[in-house]
Amino acid sequence: MAAPFTSLEAQWIIQFNAPFILENHTLVINESHIVDILPTADARQKYPTNIIVELQEHALVPGFINTHNHAAMTLFRGMADDLPLMTWLNDHIWPAEGKWVQEEFVKDGTKLAIAEMLLSGTTTFSDMYFFPEAAAKVVEDAGIKAQLCTPIMEFPTAWGSGPDEYIKKTEQLLEQYKAHPRITIAAGPHAPYTVSDETFVKCIKLKDKYNCKLQVHLHETQFEVDESVKQHQMTPIDRLNKLGVLDNDTQCVHMTSLTDANITSISESGAHIIHCPESNLKLASGLSPINKAQHANINIALGTDGAASNNDLDMLSEARSAAFLAKAVSSDATALSAIEALKAATINGAKALGIDEKTGSLETGKLADIIAIDLSPLHCQPVYDPISQIIYASRSDQITNVWSEGQRLVENRKLTKMNTAEIINQAKAWASKIKEANK
Amino acid sequence: MAAPFTSLEAQWIIQFNAPFILENHTLVINESHIVDILPTADARQKYPTNIIVELQEHALVPGFINTHNHAAMTLFRGMADDLPLMTWLNDHIWPAEGKWVQEEFVKDGTKLAIAEMLLSGTTTFSDMYFFPEAAAKVVEDAGIKAQLCTPIMEFPTAWGSGPDEYIKKTEQLLEQYKAHPRITIAAGPHAPYTVSDETFVKCIKLKDKYNCKLQVHLHETQFEVDESVKQHQMTPIDRLNKLGVLDNDTQCVHMTSLTDANITSISESGAHIIHCPESNLKLASGLSPINKAQHANINIALGTDGAASNNDLDMLSEARSAAFLAKAVSSDATALSAIEALKAATINGAKALGIDEKTGSLETGKLADIIAIDLSPLHCQPVYDPISQIIYASRSDQITNVWSEGQRLVENRKLTKMNTAEIINQAKAWASKIKEANK
Repeated sequence: MAAPFTSLEAQWIIQFNAPFILENHTLVINESHIVDILPTADARQKYPTNIIVELQEHALVPGFINTHNHAAMTLFRGMADDLPLMTWLNDHIWPAEGKWVQEEFVKDGTKLAIAEMLLSGTTTFSDMYFFPEAAAKVVEDAGIKAQLCTPIMEFPTAWGSGPDEYIKKTEQLLEQYKAHPRITIAAGPHAPYTVSDETFVKCIKLKDKYNCKLQVHLHETQFEVDESVKQHQMTPIDRLNKLGVLDNDTQCVHMTSLTDANITSISESGAHIIHCPESNLKLASGLSPINKAQHANINIALGTDGAASNNDLDMLSEARSAAFLAKAVSSDATALSAIEALKAATINGAKALGIDEKTGSLETGKLADIIAIDLSPLHCQPVYDPISQIIYASRSDQITNVWSEGQRLVENRKLTKMNTAEIINQAKAWASKIKEANK
Repeated sequence: MAAPFTSLEAQWIIQFNAPFILENHTLVINESHIVDILPTADARQKYPTNIIVELQEHALVPGFINTHNHAAMTLFRGMADDLPLMTWLNDHIWPAEGKWVQEEFVKDGTKLAIAEMLLSGTTTFSDMYFFPEAAAKVVEDAGIKAQLCTPIMEFPTAWGSGPDEYIKKTEQLLEQYKAHPRITIAAGPHAPYTVSDETFVKCIKLKDKYNCKLQVHLHETQFEVDESVKQHQMTPIDRLNKLGVLDNDTQCVHMTSLTDANITSISESGAHIIHCPESNLKLASGLSPINKAQHANINIALGTDGAASNNDLDMLSEARSAAFLAKAVSSDATALSAIEALKAATINGAKALGIDEKTGSLETGKLADIIAIDLSPLHCQPVYDPISQIIYASRSDQITNVWSEGQRLVENRKLTKMNTAEIINQAKAWASKIKEANK
């Protein structure tokens, strides 16, 4: 006998095609996929033996897709705040990474990050950190989906001696995970100021050979742009464009300080913008003109960046910040509306990662990557428009249930496959060691 | 026999003088006041009969002071989003107010707002809305503190026929509440573009006669500034300065588009800036240079503005947004640090309202306006610095307990004096009526 189907009976289901809001509808899951969406009255008739999950006053939206993270850095959360970017990196983050980052650190930090992400509704994330092979094992067990970008740069780190070793390790991981249903490997040339032309060209070859994605920090600050103009007589975007780095498989993270010519280049290349509004604000990196970029038909996805510069991995709050900031930067209160912010946090992320045919929206035939948001709390009342309420008035503690490929990974606000107490204790143990050493 | 004292045993108590963080300390409440703060080990010895509230992994901070609100507008929350300011006002907010705003609406909307504010840690707020006499009754019952600004403008509304009637009603309320321990009346000349010179002068007379505060929307947008220059040949700040409106008793709300000369005027006058970052972002009103203003020794307090342009009344999220935005606007990651953001949300608000001698910080002799924030959740781990964790990694659902003048108004996340279910039902009933009429 086949496994029973599950009916999620919700007050609202949010879609990205009209009608955007389905009221009193049921979403039916069979194993890993969405197999039907229909009025609840009809669902009760059509699927009388389904397991029913009643989600009164809840809205169903797609699982969030966090397209930029340095997951293990959760263990450095709040260690050094309110500092200029270069002081933060040179005097705090890089020394701490040099001293502490190894496989065990990455394993425990990634576990903490994934637990936080699942509890706040993220079902897919992209990571860029050392020891991605350690992160992969955590992803495998946790049930979340991930794109793991291998860090590639000119200098040696705990993970390798330099670009050739990083690229070799990337190839090994690409081979190892090529058939994995939930883990994808991508090349992560760190940034224009840490990667040579020669190494970028090697990354392109990798991309062509393995048909993989490439993620790069790009135009994070005006300083980066100015230095590139001094050294290469062109902006980082122009340099990468000339090298052939930018195309539809490229994910460009940050993208502040963009000229109109830069926007045209990106638009023509088909590359994606990974917008990290809270990190850009907190580090005073600069402002990304995403309203302009969106009007130039560039796909805008969202990322939290690492917890050391945010300091949470909360995509609902990130979507709200993105909507707020887009309006301020463009002096246009209609910029990045609530539904557009929700798309940036979901389907646009799927497009950037190249998985939009299988996830990123609630549609029959797609993976059951779904979150249920409770709109009943007092601070969400009254509800004129559930989409507005989700983006502008909700907190991530209202996310009560999360399904990833049909598996219920969060049930009534509790993780079902991860040990919360153990994860917290491991984080505390790391912080004790780090604080002790800093004394 | 005297009422027993209460000991709040917390892991961290946050102060605004060094040492900023007291670890494993107890705060002792007697009736409405804080009477002692001491190490928990000592407190157990010194106060053996106290009622003990154990607050493991909690930080105590002062109750938030939300210095700008239009409380009853919670009933319009999410009714019209993502619209330009003037469309939003002309086509949605003002017609809805014209049709719906009367005493009952203000009573129910203010109740919803106060319930939301208490649950998210606000123990004092400033309001500016029609029928302040209806709001006053709700404040009286709820146990929260409020400054109620009477709206004064040139045109007739449901609350009165014009400036003379508004001023007369203000005087009546000033008389009625002059001895009230928790309610203060202030004059609320709405904005430079809705109030004539003559009416501003009458407000100054009121201020002088009753020694009351004055709150005014000022420099909300560049458009307001440009129109003033056209009509009055000077910026709104210069106009108000010339009229004598600006002094230490004046609270200036919004304050975007400030020239250096404007900042100097405000600094010299002693007036306070009421900064509403989320409303300014959402309505694309403009950016307030608060880092510059702070360096010019201007007091910066925080407000959420009304729920129709935010869309919540969450001061913890507002403080985070303020810290983020200050860094971005000043291109300086050190601007508005975590502790400064916490001060903006508490003691600076008390200074703006003129009540800093009795509240706004956790000190022996001050009112017991206190909130307890639980830093144990997974997304706050690990804790290197509790202040950083509060501002950059916490959500307001972590506020478990709230005391207002010694009364425990929120106990384990539940309101003790207000009927949550009834408040929600009233909000839903209003929305049904409004939606029905809009069909």
